[in-house]
Amino acid sequence: MSMDSTTFSNDSGTSKESPNRVAIVGASGYGGLQSLRLLKDHPYFDISYLGGERSAGKRWNEHCPFLTLDNDPYIQKPDPETIAHESDFAILSLPNGISSQLTPELLKRDVRVIDLSADYRYRSLDHWEQAYVHEASLVKREDHDLCSEAIYGLSEWNTNKISKGRLVASPGCFPTASLLPLLPFLKQGLIETEGVIIDAKSGTSGGGRSPKEHLLFSECSESLSPYAVIGHRHTSEIEEQSTEVAGQSIQVQFTPHLIPMVRGLLSTVYGRLRDPGLTAEDCRTVIETVYRNHSNISILPVGTYPATKWVKGTNKAIISVQVDSRTGRIVLMCAIDNLIKGQAGQGIQNLNIMAGLNQSTGIPLTSFYP
Amino acid sequence: MSMDSTTFSNDSGTSKESPNRVAIVGASGYGGLQSLRLLKDHPYFDISYLGGERSAGKRWNEHCPFLTLDNDPYIQKPDPETIAHESDFAILSLPNGISSQLTPELLKRDVRVIDLSADYRYRSLDHWEQAYVHEASLVKREDHDLCSEAIYGLSEWNTNKISKGRLVASPGCFPTASLLPLLPFLKQGLIETEGVIIDAKSGTSGGGRSPKEHLLFSECSESLSPYAVIGHRHTSEIEEQSTEVAGQSIQVQFTPHLIPMVRGLLSTVYGRLRDPGLTAEDCRTVIETVYRNHSNISILPVGTYPATKWVKGTNKAIISVQVDSRTGRIVLMCAIDNLIKGQAGQGIQNLNIMAGLNQSTGIPLTSFYP
Amino acid sequence: MSMDSTTFSNDSGTSKESPNRVAIVGASGYGGLQSLRLLKDHPYFDISYLGGERSAGKRWNEHCPFLTLDNDPYIQKPDPETIAHESDFAILSLPNGISSQLTPELLKRDVRVIDLSADYRYRSLDHWEQAYVHEASLVKREDHDLCSEAIYGLSEWNTNKISKGRLVASPGCFPTASLLPLLPFLKQGLIETEGVIIDAKSGTSGGGRSPKEHLLFSECSESLSPYAVIGHRHTSEIEEQSTEVAGQSIQVQFTPHLIPMVRGLLSTVYGRLRDPGLTAEDCRTVIETVYRNHSNISILPVGTYPATKWVKGTNKAIISVQVDSRTGRIVLMCAIDNLIKGQAGQGIQNLNIMAGLNQSTGIPLTSFYP
Amino acid sequence: MSMDSTTFSNDSGTSKESPNRVAIVGASGYGGLQSLRLLKDHPYFDISYLGGERSAGKRWNEHCPFLTLDNDPYIQKPDPETIAHESDFAILSLPNGISSQLTPELLKRDVRVIDLSADYRYRSLDHWEQAYVHEASLVKREDHDLCSEAIYGLSEWNTNKISKGRLVASPGCFPTASLLPLLPFLKQGLIETEGVIIDAKSGTSGGGRSPKEHLLFSECSESLSPYAVIGHRHTSEIEEQSTEVAGQSIQVQFTPHLIPMVRGLLSTVYGRLRDPGLTAEDCRTVIETVYRNHSNISILPVGTYPATKWVKGTNKAIISVQVDSRTGRIVLMCAIDNLIKGQAGQGIQNLNIMAGLNQSTGIPLTSFYP
Repeated sequence: MSMDSTTFSNDSGTSKESPNRVAIVGASGYGGLQSLRLLKDHPYFDISYLGGERSAGKRWNEHCPFLTLDNDPYIQKPDPETIAHESDFAILSLPNGISSQLTPELLKRDVRVIDLSADYRYRSLDHWEQAYVHEASLVKREDHDLCSEAIYGLSEWNTNKISKGRLVASPGCFPTASLLPLLPFLKQGLIETEGVIIDAKSGTSGGGRSPKEHLLFSECSESLSPYAVIGHRHTSEIEEQSTEVAGQSIQVQFTPHLIPMVRGLLSTVYGRLRDPGLTAEDCRTVIETVYRNHSNISILPVGTYPATKWVKGTNKAIISVQVDSRTGRIVLMCAIDNLIKGQAGQGIQNLNIMAGLNQSTGIPLTSFYP
Repeated sequence: MSMDSTTFSNDSGTSKESPNRVAIVGASGYGGLQSLRLLKDHPYFDISYLGGERSAGKRWNEHCPFLTLDNDPYIQKPDPETIAHESDFAILSLPNGISSQLTPELLKRDVRVIDLSADYRYRSLDHWEQAYVHEASLVKREDHDLCSEAIYGLSEWNTNKISKGRLVASPGCFPTASLLPLLPFLKQGLIETEGVIIDAKSGTSGGGRSPKEHLLFSECSESLSPYAVIGHRHTSEIEEQSTEVAGQSIQVQFTPHLIPMVRGLLSTVYGRLRDPGLTAEDCRTVIETVYRNHSNISILPVGTYPATKWVKGTNKAIISVQVDSRTGRIVLMCAIDNLIKGQAGQGIQNLNIMAGLNQSTGIPLTSFYP
Repeated sequence: MSMDSTTFSNDSGTSKESPNRVAIVGASGYGGLQSLRLLKDHPYFDISYLGGERSAGKRWNEHCPFLTLDNDPYIQKPDPETIAHESDFAILSLPNGISSQLTPELLKRDVRVIDLSADYRYRSLDHWEQAYVHEASLVKREDHDLCSEAIYGLSEWNTNKISKGRLVASPGCFPTASLLPLLPFLKQGLIETEGVIIDAKSGTSGGGRSPKEHLLFSECSESLSPYAVIGHRHTSEIEEQSTEVAGQSIQVQFTPHLIPMVRGLLSTVYGRLRDPGLTAEDCRTVIETVYRNHSNISILPVGTYPATKWVKGTNKAIISVQVDSRTGRIVLMCAIDNLIKGQAGQGIQNLNIMAGLNQSTGIPLTSFYP
Repeated sequence: MSMDSTTFSNDSGTSKESPNRVAIVGASGYGGLQSLRLLKDHPYFDISYLGGERSAGKRWNEHCPFLTLDNDPYIQKPDPETIAHESDFAILSLPNGISSQLTPELLKRDVRVIDLSADYRYRSLDHWEQAYVHEASLVKREDHDLCSEAIYGLSEWNTNKISKGRLVASPGCFPTASLLPLLPFLKQGLIETEGVIIDAKSGTSGGGRSPKEHLLFSECSESLSPYAVIGHRHTSEIEEQSTEVAGQSIQVQFTPHLIPMVRGLLSTVYGRLRDPGLTAEDCRTVIETVYRNHSNISILPVGTYPATKWVKGTNKAIISVQVDSRTGRIVLMCAIDNLIKGQAGQGIQNLNIMAGLNQSTGIPLTSFYP
């Protein structure tokens, strides 16, 4: 019997008068579907609005017979006025660039925004334009102020700021799985700032639901490949956050790989310990202490390594720490479900924080294994 | 926001004094893991006891780092006295034959039993011995009375009997996915009793967690094969239940296939309509009417066919009906998660019924797609 | 050491003066890639021309770095004149409807055609237009004569006609896997002509290489679903061939299923025996006798059932026969690689026959297991 | 039409009098099956003997209905005298430790041995005993001389020695995919000797065919996990070979990961360039030059990254080189089929070399894609 996951803190004053109406914009993609699935069973929030471009005008249950909603709402072409009229919060699960066209209009109308795209993940618009050259060429943006106002939504690291934020830029799967294990060691100065290598492995759902040849079952199954080997745009996002926490410039070598599985992401992070005398148990203690009160993060015993299956369908990040005394290196491993903790689940976690609820309210933390 | 799945009926009188302590025996197998996972988040029941042979003496969380329990109980060698002292109900997830050695001892001590094995699925011990020749050779059974007393736990068909039963024999994945679509048409005499063909396809988890060569990833992946092509023992179980509902002898041709996926089962059932004028819509109305008030079963619109992914991790059975007017045949398709509605989830559904709760209490009905 | 698969019959007179230049049109799709792969290592034929629409103008090796050709040819926009100048044979791996626009032009110029599309698989153009309504609406066809001239390229059944044919309509995966086990019993009148049920299961590569949402890894993996449950267009093709061999009208109930594997197809065919006294061994003898001299077909011992993995990457069809004396039914199972025996491999087999070679020349018959 | 892969050099004098009889010992495991499959179609060698423990006494075709042999030999309990009487070469596909019990007996009797186990991969028996502690505790070995005599069978690097060797210790999948890309740069001193990181990803068939829980489909599918994170025994093997080629002591950080696919292995190797001015093109030229005449190795254009699917079922290693000028690091990627170039295929490649044939004789170099 569980108390944690189905109840919420009493002192949050969640009467029906409290703001609990949530719009989901971009509901048909994988991120939108997760958001919808999580909110459908959420004990506090109501789905008040479904926005989508391609399926606008259809009823939801016809569009998605496997994830029906009791009131069977229409999918609407996103309109800020309507959204604001019906919603207190909006979760935007839109392509990069598109979100920035809608967000300012929603904020103006007092809708608090959780953005799942990359549009507000950099503190500077210039930096975004450098990383997202193609998208920047398609949309006109002048929202410098919003870029610096937006809170980077790595829930465990920015909880206070998120709780008061109007605009939360929820990070994606690669930065989440890279930063969660790395930041505690950077913050405490335990690893050398030079030479961090992140070898990351992601399931195919990270590539989205739009049909592309390289994401076909026939292409992906029984195959594994690296991609965007240098210059992947998540590199700069990871570096910006790492630099901020470390207090000095951090460069990382980041290599993503496409793995023949739908969900799941594992990052294997290599660094060099400043103090070669530190043991794996020492390092485990460091990270265990940082995340002790965070129910969405588990640190494994030394010598136990995470399988992504352990976190499938949950918002958990499971982390393991190992040290090779021969080489003086630390190896950090972090497994998440790329669509939950790496996308929509962290969005709901941030929504909970913004609404003053327990972070884990309505969020699954235990997998159905296998 | 969901009301259905997290609340339970008030009139069931579920105060803490009510019997809500559940023992899980055979917790490490896939069936046991599902039972444990479902009960861990269940709003009413408590896991009071974990029994297992191989892992007896270990603490649970060390044994299973990805599905931890707050009180981190010891796994115990199953002992009826201890189980009875600590539990009101016992879910037995044991190999065929073994269950019958424990069940009588538990019933004697007033523990109500949900048995996930086949030991009590036949009304007669003789019939069981014919179908389970190997197991019958290993154990000594004289529990004829229990065989006839046991309730066949197809939740939607035996709800009343289950609610009062001491011993519920929960059916497995193949019979559940075969009987749910078939019984409404047999009961109403709409299809010919001769010539029913069930072509069933199951994921690998149906084969259990004990290592066997043919269940290795290297053997199963990128492959598909039929097995036990005639004389599979579920044939007789399906026939016994079909015969009872139809009121006349039913023979079926049942062929299982092993599919390269972990979870999920689809049965494709072919029958001949007695009245060739019946349309697919007519037949859909028949089955829709039967299951109208059953939240664990959905009937799809005609022309929409179920994918097993739609029910993964849930207790739903999704059924589609089609009619070929050229051939006079009806084609019934039923998708379930073999480990949930096909095993442990139906067990919890039966447990809910036995405890006077809403059938769906604490049971997931919506998948995390994809 | 193998003699069979790498040598060819001496009496075929395959001097370099013999016609051995083969054009592949539609080389980038899965069918085209298989044809190219098979011909690249073929001891007799040369690839003389590569035709493609989208990639026209590119060099092959840049287009396909994993399947390079020594001479690195350009991909050309298909032009009958050029093809005829450079080729003796053409393998057309084109969308349905498109093939019929090119085939007459090639035949006029004395190029013998192996067509992998459905355009010439029916004896009558009307029949094709009924089954391929959409395609028929897009192209204008008046080639009634070619429809009746074309040889249905089920290699083992039409060997003589194929050897002399100008135009061979190679069948696809579902008809091949359905007809090979079924025809011997229809021909000898051993099963009832009414009530044949074909439950077929195919890997995703049968859906081709064009990106479609339902073929994405994220959608297909860990899922299984039926589709086109009545009225699939292969039904009429199977019925036309069955009727011809049986000498009387045959109707079948055909249901395809999409399986989470790239390659491989299994048909499970159910029929009723006319003589209920026939045993599985009897029926095995019947089919073994028919295919005794056909090295591309293997009949398994009774009680051994084929896995599609056994034929992956080969042109083998492996068949098993079972009889259920309780129900009087025969169950036939046939496993093939949908892209080889179900498409391009059978095309090369037909090409071998047309060129007077041993049917298996240059064709793999043994899988790399697992 | 291919000349390369089906013909062999004329000057090797391969008359039937030449030694071409090959014993396979351990034929039922995945390594043995590949060896058998490759030799079955080999234009020069004959399979003269099949040895196995568990299946001794059975006929091969009954044991393995999907990979039949024309003469359907008996599987025999391995006996050196019989093997020597019937064979010129023996391929040993046996568990670590067991091979060392048979190899000396075969060499005494003038059988040349290709050993696919790790027993002779270290130059010193002590080193082996340190890396294979468990195996060393089970068998008694005193064959120090053989350890130093054995040739490390990385075909491209030791061709001459292999050609004259009596005993070739064929390396496994991880060392092969790690050393092939790394050695050219170590040999030429282009990367720093400190700080090499190898992040390797392997399919499940690398774990063998013996049933183990963690290799079940239900456990592996839709999951990814690291294992043996420090101290994996292949680390010392890679270091021994790297040190020898570099001429100075090399330490590597090696982390294997288990990937949900049957075949295929990708190593991602990170090093620091000594000269930060080197470009990816420069580095590509270096490795291209080293492997120019090696038909089993392909170097991709800069910016194209290998998928393991490209090499499935072949003996190819496909390598890509990238340089990150920001960080001064080189990233090397190498994809192989773990059972072919990573095991049995390299064994046959070595067998070809020992017999004076073209290295690629009878060895597939092009995949059936997808």
